[in-house]
Amino acid sequence: MTDIKRHEPKKILANAVEAGGLVFLAGQCAPDLSADAAGQTRQILDEIDRLLALAGSDKSKAVSATIWVSDIRYRDPMNEVWVEWIDSANIPARACIEAKLADPRALVEIAVIAAK
Amino acid sequence: MTDIKRHEPKKILANAVEAGGLVFLAGQCAPDLSADAAGQTRQILDEIDRLLALAGSDKSKAVSATIWVSDIRYRDPMNEVWVEWIDSANIPARACIEAKLADPRALVEIAVIAAK
Amino acid sequence: MTDIKRHEPKKILANAVEAGGLVFLAGQCAPDLSADAAGQTRQILDEIDRLLALAGSDKSKAVSATIWVSDIRYRDPMNEVWVEWIDSANIPARACIEAKLADPRALVEIAVIAAK
Repeated sequence: MTDIKRHEPKKILANAVEAGGLVFLAGQCAPDLSADAAGQTRQILDEIDRLLALAGSDKSKAVSATIWVSDIRYRDPMNEVWVEWIDSANIPARACIEAKLADPRALVEIAVIAAK
Repeated sequence: MTDIKRHEPKKILANAVEAGGLVFLAGQCAPDLSADAAGQTRQILDEIDRLLALAGSDKSKAVSATIWVSDIRYRDPMNEVWVEWIDSANIPARACIEAKLADPRALVEIAVIAAK
Repeated sequence: MTDIKRHEPKKILANAVEAGGLVFLAGQCAPDLSADAAGQTRQILDEIDRLLALAGSDKSKAVSATIWVSDIRYRDPMNEVWVEWIDSANIPARACIEAKLADPRALVEIAVIAAK
């Protein structure tokens, strides 16, 4: 049986779940949705740093990311912040697609799978 | 080499695949697509219970879920059923986004990764 | 600590990342986007074969696939190529949804998780 550890469980989701040597983060949106796409991405990546640390991991162990942008034109500003953030010696796999998000003010959402 | 076990393989997908201590379910839509979003969600979560059991897991070991709704307004009725279903002591990570689904009558699709 | 191995790291993503007995591929689009949906799918699945081989895996060990089509009507031609490609004795789990992709000429994008 695989050991499972859950961090910040809320009503509908837990922000990070450890299982099988991997950490699965919930899709993160920016805490302050009044920011533009670059600003929201910065906030999201800060949250991801915080959640990975909670689970004993960090961005150098990021394995895969799924990135949703509410308009595909936000891919460019998101990418600029993304490239500054990722560990250039430890680049994750990634998919980036357009999708309407839960809150209409949310322009970016990112879910990460990392190793421990 | 990781041991892989496949359940209910069909022409284009298997409904559940075990690998590396995890179980990956195919995205599930409701068997009866005439139901509303809440009703479809109920059917989907019943299917997910059934498939997790096939793979020797259950919802208390759910690690991560991806939920697609065909209109983001269906997130609320889906969430009501979701909250009743999930094990409140074992909440999974989650992302919920809008996407057009294979069948135009499908309002909700859910894919789950669980531990064993 | 889980051992992580990264293949073809580029500026924003690595094409394949091994961790915990699994291989996570980046979402693949066709190298030649002038092809139709079936042709793009064929190119993508060739790329996936190549990347899985790089990571010491192959399609018979595919665990799960996420397939995005830019118009849900492309699901049928994609499926025809998909069914020819997958190992009928080793069918993966799968979800297929519509999403606008990074390049407007991209009609299909596929991300695969495989075991090793």
